[in-house]
Amino acid sequence: MKSSIKIALDVMGGDYAPLEVIKGAILAQKEMKDISLVLVGDKFSIEKYLKRLGDTQFLIKDAPEVIRMEDPPALSIRKKKNSSIVEGINLLKSGEVQGFVSAGNTGAVVCASTLYLGLLEGIQRPGIGILLPTLKGMSFMIDVGANIDPKPFHLLQYAIMGDAYFRIVWGKKRPKIGLLNIGEEETKGTDFLKECYNLLSQSELNFLGNIEAKDIFSGKCDVIICDGFVGNIALKVSEGLAETLTKFLKQFFKKNIICYMGAFLIKPFLKDFFRSMDYAEYGGAPLLGIKGTVIICHGRSKAKAIKNAIKVARSQILSKLNKNIIELINA
Amino acid sequence: MKSSIKIALDVMGGDYAPLEVIKGAILAQKEMKDISLVLVGDKFSIEKYLKRLGDTQFLIKDAPEVIRMEDPPALSIRKKKNSSIVEGINLLKSGEVQGFVSAGNTGAVVCASTLYLGLLEGIQRPGIGILLPTLKGMSFMIDVGANIDPKPFHLLQYAIMGDAYFRIVWGKKRPKIGLLNIGEEETKGTDFLKECYNLLSQSELNFLGNIEAKDIFSGKCDVIICDGFVGNIALKVSEGLAETLTKFLKQFFKKNIICYMGAFLIKPFLKDFFRSMDYAEYGGAPLLGIKGTVIICHGRSKAKAIKNAIKVARSQILSKLNKNIIELINA
Repeated sequence: MKSSIKIALDVMGGDYAPLEVIKGAILAQKEMKDISLVLVGDKFSIEKYLKRLGDTQFLIKDAPEVIRMEDPPALSIRKKKNSSIVEGINLLKSGEVQGFVSAGNTGAVVCASTLYLGLLEGIQRPGIGILLPTLKGMSFMIDVGANIDPKPFHLLQYAIMGDAYFRIVWGKKRPKIGLLNIGEEETKGTDFLKECYNLLSQSELNFLGNIEAKDIFSGKCDVIICDGFVGNIALKVSEGLAETLTKFLKQFFKKNIICYMGAFLIKPFLKDFFRSMDYAEYGGAPLLGIKGTVIICHGRSKAKAIKNAIKVARSQILSKLNKNIIELINA
Repeated sequence: MKSSIKIALDVMGGDYAPLEVIKGAILAQKEMKDISLVLVGDKFSIEKYLKRLGDTQFLIKDAPEVIRMEDPPALSIRKKKNSSIVEGINLLKSGEVQGFVSAGNTGAVVCASTLYLGLLEGIQRPGIGILLPTLKGMSFMIDVGANIDPKPFHLLQYAIMGDAYFRIVWGKKRPKIGLLNIGEEETKGTDFLKECYNLLSQSELNFLGNIEAKDIFSGKCDVIICDGFVGNIALKVSEGLAETLTKFLKQFFKKNIICYMGAFLIKPFLKDFFRSMDYAEYGGAPLLGIKGTVIICHGRSKAKAIKNAIKVARSQILSKLNKNIIELINA
């Protein structure tokens, strides 16, 4: 019998937990026959929801404590040893599962992963990568928030990991790497970015040079490298703009019958577009550089997004990405 | 006789110069009877275009050299003393005009303004502010690119100038000030941002605290403070996303007859929306902190955008903003 891929799922994390997360687990289990999920969270409440949903096949790891979105990450993972995040990471550390998926407090997931799992040999800092839809397919942006005050060398390592991710998990040969900057010329940006540019130029990566923020969605580069602060701002601006446009559109609906008709016809398209812009829907962001496969979902994740994130975890585990990263970093 | 407001216009700057810039001048002159424009650029070519457009009423300042978009700012303003940017700034310095509007090389405009005009008493660095459309009206974001490696004290000064701009030019009482960060809590972000937070908290401004990038377009704050690098990235991401959506929409057009109809009906709305998101259309960004009124337009500015930028310059001159800023900074 083929052994299954075991993935732990944080049932208590996210705005729609636990119901939508459990629904996501059920969807994933139906779609992927080779995975086996462990639901991590308050056992009593998980059993109650599973019963309500008519599904009781899951393994459960009791974790009665909850780290909330607003809790301070470092402190709460130390204080709440029985939280779903810490228990999930511990399952990964002990080898009981091969992956962990959470829509909970991002900072706490990054902290717990770094502290309890540790970093891959040679890696100095973990980075959160995210797939973004572009005019030419998908791009991968790293880091979007794990490391907000990085050194240039960290960005070089993000580029190596991003390149590996795109090649190994997504099967693209020689991904084009770009450095997010305020202009394309080599001399643009802060001293920090000029140093990053130098390091990337000297690497064996397919480094195209600087990329401007307006080109993130044009598909000019496959992998976009940035510091976690700037990456997070870029991501959240897109999210905010998409939300604003949706709200404007709703106001527009009520304007007159022509607007109503036009909006009605075009609505499914816009919904699809904004959903595809949204990593809540898209399937989670891998935390790269740590010993294990950890996927971070947006707090807003619903069942389908959770299912997609589990799929992302599964692909990453199957690809043996981490083994490859270690070889590349220590080459 | 009431004396007119004299404004110099860089006719050689921008992707559509000189034709669209000259058209913008003609529009502005028709709309605002109390202004008098000086067209700065290659005299021969300006006269040719004016003749073609059937308008010859303008004063011309001959400036045969052009600083291109890709030219290094500091070097080119020193080398090209007869460029439209340097000549325009010199007109402002000598008092022959009260304002200068340019869609040319932003870096060169900032450099020339700082070097040749100088900073307002007490101001340490100039900042580019920009008006952004939100769900609740307009917000003002400063800095979006003049100062990419600022000190916390510079951001405090940007807040004071942004507050003054919103009150004095836009007539809003006690504008709400927000600091752009990756989370709302006081403890979020880099050490740099924590210092900025402290300075803003201790000021007499109506400081609301940190604001996340997803809230830029929600209208939560009137004035959003950020460093020039992050502000520029935020602005360019919006621009890129808007362009991408437009391109997606064009593809969608061709899908089927229902999509075609829906898109056709909704198109004017989306055009308006994206135009209002676009500071090329919106009317230019004031460079605050310098001795004089300098308005920077997007390189893509067409006639209407140039006309709007001249209007922004006029309002700023009439408001006596700089006098107010000096009083506030040195209070």
